[in-house]
Amino acid sequence: MHIDEASNAELRQMLEQLEKQQQVYIDQHLHLDITRGKPSTAQLQLSDALDGILDGDYRDDNGTDLRNYGGLDGIPAAKQLFADMLGSKPENMFIGGNSSLSLMHYTLWFAYHLGLRDSDVAWKEQSTVVKFLCPCPGYDRHFKLCQELGIEMEVVPLTGQGPDMDIVEEKVKNDPGIKGIWCVPRFSNPTGEVYSEETVKRLANLGNIAGDNFLVMWDNAYVVHALGKNSPELANISDIAQSLGTENSIIQFGSTSKITFAGAGIGFMAASESILNGFVKHFGMASIGADKLNQMRHVKFLKDANTIDAHMQKHADIISPKFQAVDAILEQDLAGSGMGEWNKPQGGYFVSFNTRPGLAKAVVALAAEAGVKLTPAGATYPLGKDPQDSNIRIAPTFPELDELEQAMRVLTHCVKLASIRQKLA
Amino acid sequence: MHIDEASNAELRQMLEQLEKQQQVYIDQHLHLDITRGKPSTAQLQLSDALDGILDGDYRDDNGTDLRNYGGLDGIPAAKQLFADMLGSKPENMFIGGNSSLSLMHYTLWFAYHLGLRDSDVAWKEQSTVVKFLCPCPGYDRHFKLCQELGIEMEVVPLTGQGPDMDIVEEKVKNDPGIKGIWCVPRFSNPTGEVYSEETVKRLANLGNIAGDNFLVMWDNAYVVHALGKNSPELANISDIAQSLGTENSIIQFGSTSKITFAGAGIGFMAASESILNGFVKHFGMASIGADKLNQMRHVKFLKDANTIDAHMQKHADIISPKFQAVDAILEQDLAGSGMGEWNKPQGGYFVSFNTRPGLAKAVVALAAEAGVKLTPAGATYPLGKDPQDSNIRIAPTFPELDELEQAMRVLTHCVKLASIRQKLA
Repeated sequence: MHIDEASNAELRQMLEQLEKQQQVYIDQHLHLDITRGKPSTAQLQLSDALDGILDGDYRDDNGTDLRNYGGLDGIPAAKQLFADMLGSKPENMFIGGNSSLSLMHYTLWFAYHLGLRDSDVAWKEQSTVVKFLCPCPGYDRHFKLCQELGIEMEVVPLTGQGPDMDIVEEKVKNDPGIKGIWCVPRFSNPTGEVYSEETVKRLANLGNIAGDNFLVMWDNAYVVHALGKNSPELANISDIAQSLGTENSIIQFGSTSKITFAGAGIGFMAASESILNGFVKHFGMASIGADKLNQMRHVKFLKDANTIDAHMQKHADIISPKFQAVDAILEQDLAGSGMGEWNKPQGGYFVSFNTRPGLAKAVVALAAEAGVKLTPAGATYPLGKDPQDSNIRIAPTFPELDELEQAMRVLTHCVKLASIRQKLA
Repeated sequence: MHIDEASNAELRQMLEQLEKQQQVYIDQHLHLDITRGKPSTAQLQLSDALDGILDGDYRDDNGTDLRNYGGLDGIPAAKQLFADMLGSKPENMFIGGNSSLSLMHYTLWFAYHLGLRDSDVAWKEQSTVVKFLCPCPGYDRHFKLCQELGIEMEVVPLTGQGPDMDIVEEKVKNDPGIKGIWCVPRFSNPTGEVYSEETVKRLANLGNIAGDNFLVMWDNAYVVHALGKNSPELANISDIAQSLGTENSIIQFGSTSKITFAGAGIGFMAASESILNGFVKHFGMASIGADKLNQMRHVKFLKDANTIDAHMQKHADIISPKFQAVDAILEQDLAGSGMGEWNKPQGGYFVSFNTRPGLAKAVVALAAEAGVKLTPAGATYPLGKDPQDSNIRIAPTFPELDELEQAMRVLTHCVKLASIRQKLA
């Protein structure tokens, strides 16, 4: 029954039952957690062959001793492998350590305080107030990077095809303080949407509107993370930017954190020669180069695009049933109820759930009381402030299936409880 | 013969012979390189057991899955191991990725732009001109970090027992813009000196003179890198600072770059709880934590202080003959000549050589012409400017012994050639 069609008497009856059930959950002292976008143990085991794969061979094809210092921008074989993944070229690649987030952090710090390229003025000197566009709901760590630097954030709505580009273009045109935009273009965190070709083209063209020193931060974290065979492809932003002459406004990021080992993978980026030169010049102050042995382990293990595809299929085999379980329970418990909306992602790591306005915090609190940890309400918006107080990010991959199902039942129960309480208030 | 006691005729005769010899070297097209403070292949091989040592065991004693995300400040077992190395405690440790330089970079960036601890004002807001004291000759990468941030550097002389503390204390007392000092306290790069206990005490006390928000950057890069059995020990600055109440002004850094694999080791730091909290808060914006598998590899391989001692003895067995060869050739060719002075380090990675004033650049250029690459003259001073133009850093570890000896013969030859040219000019 749709909540807006129920009588007050019906609502009160449902509420009574839900309050009782809440007490049952509380008394069960559950300890469930669906907050974390982490691979499960079974997924990690898929890459156990990584350790020891070098088998005493510590040199690459050029004879470089991978144990020693050097190789500030990464080993050539890793550049080739990950260029293929991002649709870039080896000469446009930088291969780092175990974290693409660190590469984003360095990029923003360099651009903000020093200017990324020699020809760039530091953002902080170009504008009194430096701003970034944040398509939302989005990834909290992107927003925290901006916050740490004092970069103001402007929320832009997502459309299901990527950010609303009319709004984006309008803002960029009218405000020279806007220096960039965050994008998770394929299986966006948490909405799961894949940016359409038109959106990619318009994003690639922003450099022509904003002029120099504007960055599309293209966090392609889930580029090969489809759940099924027929999930939508992403247009190649490097090629498009090349044709538009905006290649100096695009930086792509990727990592193997959700391909191999989440904590011991390889982060990398793709950018124009001019941006890479600037980045490497500044990065060279902080490091002599990342762990080349781990880069080579990944080259030997992941080999090429076909091997990666086959490997990602094994991940999909493990996590697809979890995504299906989440969707099935949401359908069973909430379809047609008017108490929530959610996406059906074809890849990535999350399901994005929206309560009726003003209820996300209440639902998260009720779930916590019932022993289920959810990502804090608001986390998917800058400064943790969801203007609608409605978005909740569900992360199905880490828990075992039975725990996930139990947690989802608690979640749908809490959604009902909060919704009916609100309706009756 | 001492250069100042030779007659002009004698000098001219020597010069003629040296010019001829220079041409002989040029015609030989040598390609020798003694610039790099890198371990040799034989040294790297000492740690080959690291790779594969996990043998399928990816959990630590607490059951943490080391393959997954998490562990922002490092794994407990690594904290224990490296706390012992730095004379600190596990709860005061931060374990990072493959680079202690990155940890220094983050430390300075955070302190300069944000304030390291919650209670600290950002250096840039506390002083119009932020300055650091740089004991010289020193490590070029320390100076470049300051340069990148726009921190002004003031040179302080080294005494053979560490920095001249009368000068250091005077400067800190009189200039609140001075926010820190660089120290490589054991087997200093490049002078090889070990700071005396008195020097360590006076450095630890600087926090009481400077007040809050002052940092002794204690880069203990060569803490276990003695060449022989009876090399001088270093006083424990953590303990001293504790007793003086200055623990918030000390950060120790260390790494296994010259213990295991130079490019795939572990960097770490030790600091007060209050500093670590501040560091981790900011660092948590940039990373989910370093590679815990590589941390565990190091725990399993290096085990404890005794195992590390035995391992470092193997390094010493490989590199001591190289240091002896450098000293023997300098003695044979230059002792009593008045054309150069050098140290006889008991550990570390370098020999520091001083030409007569005004000749370092000329010697480096002559050596380059003769096919021997030396560290650029001036590199051991801020902004690459050696006020005396006399210091040259010799790095004996990487080349094979015969190449090292050949390069040293060219170096002493170039020293003579430049010295006599200068004397006759």
